[in-house]
Amino acid sequence: MTQPTCDPVEAYLADCRDLALEELRRIVPAASGAAAALYDLVLDYPLREAKALRPALCIAACRALGGPLEGVLPSAAILELYHNAFLIHDDVEDDSEHRRGREALHREYGAPIAINVGDAMLALALEPLLDNMRVVGLGKAIRILQLVARMARESTEGQALELDWIRHGRWDLRPSDYVRMVYKKTSWYTFVAPVMIGGTVAGASRAQLVALRKFASLLGIAFQIQDDVLNLTSEGSRYGKELAGDLWEGKRTLILLHAVQAASPAEQERARAILRKPRPRSVGETRATPGRSALHRQLDALEHAGDLSPHVRAAIVALLDGDGDGDGDAKTHGDVAFLMQLIERAGSNDFARRVADDHADRAARVLAALDGLHDSPHRDFLHGLVEFVTTRDR
Amino acid sequence: MTQPTCDPVEAYLADCRDLALEELRRIVPAASGAAAALYDLVLDYPLREAKALRPALCIAACRALGGPLEGVLPSAAILELYHNAFLIHDDVEDDSEHRRGREALHREYGAPIAINVGDAMLALALEPLLDNMRVVGLGKAIRILQLVARMARESTEGQALELDWIRHGRWDLRPSDYVRMVYKKTSWYTFVAPVMIGGTVAGASRAQLVALRKFASLLGIAFQIQDDVLNLTSEGSRYGKELAGDLWEGKRTLILLHAVQAASPAEQERARAILRKPRPRSVGETRATPGRSALHRQLDALEHAGDLSPHVRAAIVALLDGDGDGDGDAKTHGDVAFLMQLIERAGSNDFARRVADDHADRAARVLAALDGLHDSPHRDFLHGLVEFVTTRDR
Repeated sequence: MTQPTCDPVEAYLADCRDLALEELRRIVPAASGAAAALYDLVLDYPLREAKALRPALCIAACRALGGPLEGVLPSAAILELYHNAFLIHDDVEDDSEHRRGREALHREYGAPIAINVGDAMLALALEPLLDNMRVVGLGKAIRILQLVARMARESTEGQALELDWIRHGRWDLRPSDYVRMVYKKTSWYTFVAPVMIGGTVAGASRAQLVALRKFASLLGIAFQIQDDVLNLTSEGSRYGKELAGDLWEGKRTLILLHAVQAASPAEQERARAILRKPRPRSVGETRATPGRSALHRQLDALEHAGDLSPHVRAAIVALLDGDGDGDGDAKTHGDVAFLMQLIERAGSNDFARRVADDHADRAARVLAALDGLHDSPHRDFLHGLVEFVTTRDR
Repeated sequence: MTQPTCDPVEAYLADCRDLALEELRRIVPAASGAAAALYDLVLDYPLREAKALRPALCIAACRALGGPLEGVLPSAAILELYHNAFLIHDDVEDDSEHRRGREALHREYGAPIAINVGDAMLALALEPLLDNMRVVGLGKAIRILQLVARMARESTEGQALELDWIRHGRWDLRPSDYVRMVYKKTSWYTFVAPVMIGGTVAGASRAQLVALRKFASLLGIAFQIQDDVLNLTSEGSRYGKELAGDLWEGKRTLILLHAVQAASPAEQERARAILRKPRPRSVGETRATPGRSALHRQLDALEHAGDLSPHVRAAIVALLDGDGDGDGDAKTHGDVAFLMQLIERAGSNDFARRVADDHADRAARVLAALDGLHDSPHRDFLHGLVEFVTTRDR
C-alpha cells in the first residue's frame, strides 16, 4: 500500500499504482515451482516505492474519454512491467548503485540474473496483450500491440542515440538534438504510448489521438528535463537515485550542454577531458577503496620498520595508481565538482527549468483545446499533471 | 554468402540462411539517420558465420507439410533475430570473450550498447509478427505470436534455472533436472517454436503439431548435450566459442554432473570449491596480465638499483596478489585442468554422447511416424538433421 496524501495528483497516482500492481500480480506467474526465483525478482522493482506514472496516464486518458477501467487495466499494468524491465537493463548499462532507495538489482544479484529478469518481463508482457483481444476486441488489441512495438523501438533508438554520443565523445549537439533524443528515449514510453493506448481503449477519434500524442510528447520532454535537474539538485534519499549520477555517467543533458557552451575554451577543454573518463565502479568508494587503504597501511608498516625508504614507497604507490584496475583513469569527486561549478555559474539549471516550463505550458494548451474530455477526476489529473511534472521534487 | 558444401543438410541450412538474411535486411530499418549506429549493430551477429538452424527448421517444417515459402519467411527471419538477441544478452551475462570466431559484441562496444542492441532486436521482432496478419491471415498470425510469447517465456525461465543453480552452488541435481532446464533453455526456442510456427503456417493438424513438438523437444535436448560436449572437446576456431567456457562459468552440464558424481568424496569437495570460484575476467590473461607484468618489471628495476631488498619486494608482491582486483579468487587453468581430468576418467563425454544419441533416436522415430510429410528435400532435411545434430563438430 502507498502512503496517504492530500495532493490530488499524488492521490490519483497512488490509486492507479494499487490497481496496476493488483493486475500485475495476476499476470506474473505464481512464484512457485521451477522458476520461483525468477518471478519473485520480476516483482522486485514494481513493488518498490514508485510513482507509477505510466499506468496512471493510461487509465486517466481512457477514462477521461469515457472508456472503461476494466478494459484499460491489463494495458496499464503491462506499461508498468515494460518500464521496470527498461529500468533493470538501464541500471546494468549505467552500473547504477541504487534504484528507488534500495540497491540496484544487478548489484544485489549480479548482471546475469538482472539482464535475464528484464528479458523475462519483456516476454511476460506479450501474452496479456494477446489476451486483450477478449477484453477490448480484436481491432483495439492489435492497435495496442502496434503501439507497444513502436514504443519499444523508439525507446531503444533513443537509448542508442544517448549511448552513441557518450561513446564518440560528441559535443557538437544543439538543444534540438537533445529534445529529439528525449522524445524517443522518454516521451514515447512514459507519456505517448500510455495516453495513446488509453485513448485507443476508449475509442478516441483520430483527431483526439493526434492531440493526445502532442500533449504527451511535450509533457515527456518537460518531465525528462526536470528529471535531469533533480539528478543534480535533489537529496539522494528522496530522489531514489545517486546525486549527479548523470555527470558521473557523462550524459549529454540540456543542463550540461548549456554549461559547457557557456564556459571558456580552456574550461571546455577540461570539461570534455573529464567527461571522456569512465565513471568509477562505485562513487562512494572513490576516496579510499578498502583493499587499497589496507595496502597503504602495510606499506606504512614496511616503511616504519625501515624496510622501505620514503621515495621508494612513493614510487610504488605511483606504480599502483597506474596499475589499470579500471579506476585509475576514472572521474574523481573533484572532476564532478568542477562540472557542478560550471553549471552553477552559467545558471544552467534555471535555463533548463525555463525550457521545461515552456514545454509544459504548450502541453497544457494542447490539453485545454482537446475536445471530448469528460469533466471528471481523470481530466483533472491530466491537467494537474502538467504542473506536477515541472514542480515535483522526486 | 555462405561457402558451398556437398553435405545436403549443410546445403539446406546455407540456402535457408541466405533467405532469412535477405528477409532480415528488409525488416531492419535502413542504417541511416538518427539510429544508424544501432541498426548496424542489430545486423552484426546475424551476419557472422552461423548455421541459422532456426530459420531452416521453420522453413522445412512448413514446406514439408505443403506450406508456402513466402508465408513462412517473416517468421523464420524473426526467429533468427530473437536468437541473436538472446546470444548478445547471454554473452554479456557470461562475459564471453568470443562469438562466432570474433570478439563478443559487449567486448567491442561495451555492455550498455550490447544490452540495448539486444533489446532493440526484441522490439523489432514485434512489428513483422503483427504484419504477418496480411501474409498468413489473422488466426495463424495470432497463433504464431502466442508461440513466440511462450518461447520467450520458456527461454528466460530455463536461463533463470541455470543461473539460480550457479548462484546457490546447487549440486543435488539429477539428469532429469538438467533435461528439464535444457527443454526450457534450448529446446523451446531452437527447435519447438521453429517447427510449431512452420507447422502453423502450413495449417498442420493438432496431431501433427503434437508430433512436431515431441520431435523438436527430443532433438533439442540431443543438440544441447552435443553442444556441451563440443564446448569441452572442439578447437576454439572451429567451434567459434572459447574452449571449456562452460567449466570456467561453472555451468551444470550433464557431463559435469556425471563426472562429479563419479569422483571420490575428496575430489568432489575440491571440484565444488573450484566451481564456487568466479571466472577470471579474461581466460587468456590469467597467466600474466599485462599491467601486472609491467609492474613486476618496474619492481625488478627498483630492486636492481638497490632501492628494494629482495625480501621487501617479495612482501610487496604478496600484498599485491591479495589486492582484490577481482581475479585473486578466480578459477585458474590448473582448476579447469583438474575438472577436465575428472571428466576424462569418468568417461563423462561418452556418457553424455550416449544420452544425446538416445534422444536423437527417439526424435527420429517420432518423425518417421509423423503422417502427412511430403516426400521432399524439406522432409529429407528434417531426417538428415537428426544425425547432423549428434555428429556435428561445430
